[in-house]
Amino acid sequence: MLFKVEMKVNLPHDMSPEVAADIKAREKAYAQELQTQGKWRHLWRVAGSYANVSIFDVADNAELQDLISALPLFPYMDITVAPLCRHPSSIHQDDR
Amino acid sequence: MLFKVEMKVNLPHDMSPEVAADIKAREKAYAQELQTQGKWRHLWRVAGSYANVSIFDVADNAELQDLISALPLFPYMDITVAPLCRHPSSIHQDDR
Amino acid sequence: MLFKVEMKVNLPHDMSPEVAADIKAREKAYAQELQTQGKWRHLWRVAGSYANVSIFDVADNAELQDLISALPLFPYMDITVAPLCRHPSSIHQDDR
Amino acid sequence: MLFKVEMKVNLPHDMSPEVAADIKAREKAYAQELQTQGKWRHLWRVAGSYANVSIFDVADNAELQDLISALPLFPYMDITVAPLCRHPSSIHQDDR
Amino acid sequence: MLFKVEMKVNLPHDMSPEVAADIKAREKAYAQELQTQGKWRHLWRVAGSYANVSIFDVADNAELQDLISALPLFPYMDITVAPLCRHPSSIHQDDR
Amino acid sequence: MLFKVEMKVNLPHDMSPEVAADIKAREKAYAQELQTQGKWRHLWRVAGSYANVSIFDVADNAELQDLISALPLFPYMDITVAPLCRHPSSIHQDDR
Amino acid sequence: MLFKVEMKVNLPHDMSPEVAADIKAREKAYAQELQTQGKWRHLWRVAGSYANVSIFDVADNAELQDLISALPLFPYMDITVAPLCRHPSSIHQDDR
Amino acid sequence: MLFKVEMKVNLPHDMSPEVAADIKAREKAYAQELQTQGKWRHLWRVAGSYANVSIFDVADNAELQDLISALPLFPYMDITVAPLCRHPSSIHQDDR
Amino acid sequence: MLFKVEMKVNLPHDMSPEVAADIKAREKAYAQELQTQGKWRHLWRVAGSYANVSIFDVADNAELQDLISALPLFPYMDITVAPLCRHPSSIHQDDR
Amino acid sequence: MLFKVEMKVNLPHDMSPEVAADIKAREKAYAQELQTQGKWRHLWRVAGSYANVSIFDVADNAELQDLISALPLFPYMDITVAPLCRHPSSIHQDDR
Repeated sequence: MLFKVEMKVNLPHDMSPEVAADIKAREKAYAQELQTQGKWRHLWRVAGSYANVSIFDVADNAELQDLISALPLFPYMDITVAPLCRHPSSIHQDDR
Repeated sequence: MLFKVEMKVNLPHDMSPEVAADIKAREKAYAQELQTQGKWRHLWRVAGSYANVSIFDVADNAELQDLISALPLFPYMDITVAPLCRHPSSIHQDDR
Repeated sequence: MLFKVEMKVNLPHDMSPEVAADIKAREKAYAQELQTQGKWRHLWRVAGSYANVSIFDVADNAELQDLISALPLFPYMDITVAPLCRHPSSIHQDDR
Repeated sequence: MLFKVEMKVNLPHDMSPEVAADIKAREKAYAQELQTQGKWRHLWRVAGSYANVSIFDVADNAELQDLISALPLFPYMDITVAPLCRHPSSIHQDDR
Repeated sequence: MLFKVEMKVNLPHDMSPEVAADIKAREKAYAQELQTQGKWRHLWRVAGSYANVSIFDVADNAELQDLISALPLFPYMDITVAPLCRHPSSIHQDDR
Repeated sequence: MLFKVEMKVNLPHDMSPEVAADIKAREKAYAQELQTQGKWRHLWRVAGSYANVSIFDVADNAELQDLISALPLFPYMDITVAPLCRHPSSIHQDDR
Repeated sequence: MLFKVEMKVNLPHDMSPEVAADIKAREKAYAQELQTQGKWRHLWRVAGSYANVSIFDVADNAELQDLISALPLFPYMDITVAPLCRHPSSIHQDDR
Repeated sequence: MLFKVEMKVNLPHDMSPEVAADIKAREKAYAQELQTQGKWRHLWRVAGSYANVSIFDVADNAELQDLISALPLFPYMDITVAPLCRHPSSIHQDDR
Repeated sequence: MLFKVEMKVNLPHDMSPEVAADIKAREKAYAQELQTQGKWRHLWRVAGSYANVSIFDVADNAELQDLISALPLFPYMDITVAPLCRHPSSIHQDDR
Repeated sequence: MLFKVEMKVNLPHDMSPEVAADIKAREKAYAQELQTQGKWRHLWRVAGSYANVSIFDVADNAELQDLISALPLFPYMDITVAPLCRHPSSIHQDDR
């Protein structure tokens, strides 16, 4: 089941570079692990911003919550979620 | 080059069913043609709405404008566009 | 799987009373059928408005889209959707 | 008398983990006590967020204020309230 | 139980003066009847607008909905509602 | 001359409890003094919030500014003001 | 007593040129009459728009409502009002 | 050439009273100097706020930027600007 | 003197194609005339929309109003204006 | 390929003047370098603000992201981006 997830990162200006680097490294590892599992299907940078557009492929709402709330950057992001489904005009069987 | 495009359809309530059906049929044919060409890479319905989230893959901004302004539903949609690019944490070579 | 759905009705002022009455009657029958099936779990009026707050219980995003887009009032409503899941502090097994 | 209450938690980034853990533990105990009393009728997590959708069942506006303002997380939440009542199409006697 | 209700009137420009006059006359009679009953406690014009700020005193949310949805101008107004209760600093016993 | 004034309190999270208690005590005394004088005609809590809806009765705009800017909580509140006047459908001579 | 009033004109596209011309002529005559009386103290066009910024000088809120609601363009304008008073740093005795 | 300028002051809560008093004193002197020069033509307090509405009379956009960015409170204000010009219904030669 | 002007076109759905074509032809001729004169310095389409971003170079606010209000599409556009001036980091003498 | 980029600077009030001066100096040098390269085609100050309107000329979305995210002020700015293309009414070959 697919969801569009948009994330905008707002790191506090007084966060030390070391803490920020550690969080970002853990975020990257976690994001790549979820991509490898197929749960984070797409991940794009929005050009000109510290934000991304993502497509998640999860079993249900609960798994979406589990995956997103475990993001190392979760406390520092504005996140919006939209449930997606197959469009009647889509020719891609996988855009379900 | 990728763009996220979100389209929300607002058909006038006084449009005749025949006109609406014709526009929708042409929109579907056009959307499928662009998908076949690879220019409309993804097309999802937003659940609970008459709206979609799409990913376009175009040569440049001018082509994006050409493709979107030629949509049969173009005069009846609220459309937002966000330029995308490869995310440094993406593992998908194609999410460029 | 649960979703909060909020619906605000905006009937065109030039809709004839007969057409409006017919749409409302079909909306009511449909809403009660979905409630009987357990798919429209809760339905409340927002006091002081022509709007409702609802909880849907569906198999997935696609079913949510099917049910909502088939509402007789669908073309005349502003609809917002939020995916829900079990809250770690909930004591209700059914608020899954 | 029912109210929809939506709560979005915004903990200050400089709150110590011990203080945060204490507030959350007290919030959970309080939420469960109110649920046991039947005053906090439903409590759902909004998937992909640190937010909830709740249904309160109170005697009047004053009790709603008493219950919400006593939440341990009250100073750290954006809260919106909507008064609910029975919908004429509802088949649930309890969705009053 | 008190509610602040704000109403903004938006009459369609193509409504005939006779129809408008009839609706306004019925609105006025109804508003004065509710004021006489004590249910519409205060009614002020917002200076520079076709809008009002009102205080309703009702038994519960259901009565608020009954009274507001019966307003002759109801289909033509944007309405917002806020539940009120006694303020701990109020010296007026009646501002309950 | 009447004004609706809405005040939303946002105390800084790092304000010491002693300072907060002092400001609130002075705010309460001041609010009650203005109510006794008849200048702060109504004061209601908005249920489920740290906010109020008030009706001020002042000689002119300048007095409104003097009274509001002297509130001990003034630097910590979002405040909106709407000028009110007698509504042609009001039956209350005092809702002038 | 001064008020800033901002007016944005939205004439319906299907209004006949004759009706529009008549309303505008009456609006202009009325505006000039109020300016001559000193009640409409300033009137500026916002460059690049069909909107104005005005300063009204009235006895009280009720007079403001009387003057504005009598504008021939009143049904076709979005209007916002802000009460003004003398600024402690002003050197102009008349900016009261 | 005239501009409407609206300024809303947001002093940080942790600014020392001495620093605040110094900035405000310099702001007042600067505002009065510009008024004396005729460049800051009007300055009004918005009643019930820490905000003002002003009319600037400058040679061009560049001078507007020079004057506003030199305000001692500039880093602490939300500022909006609207270019003004003579209204065809104005009777005041000076409201150019 | 430069201004950024953004224009979003909203043609009524019931405008006849002939009327629309005539307005657009006159708009194009007018836009090209102003460009030739150097008053409409830049004109870009916003990709994916029926909107443009423009830079006007005018003598003053009054000329900006004269030019924009004479646009054949003026009654059908949402227009926003921002006054521009030379940026201290600009290396272009002409971006004044 | 052109993009309109709008940047609003929000420096933290507790940033030391030395750090601010250093960031601004690096921002200026970087902005001038990109202008010299032709990638930052236009740079204007918005009069009355600490903000700019810019036109970037880049190879693709990825280059836009690279250039913007490398701005020394990037962590302290609200940035919005709009893709531009040649307008059919433009007479400037270079406004592509």
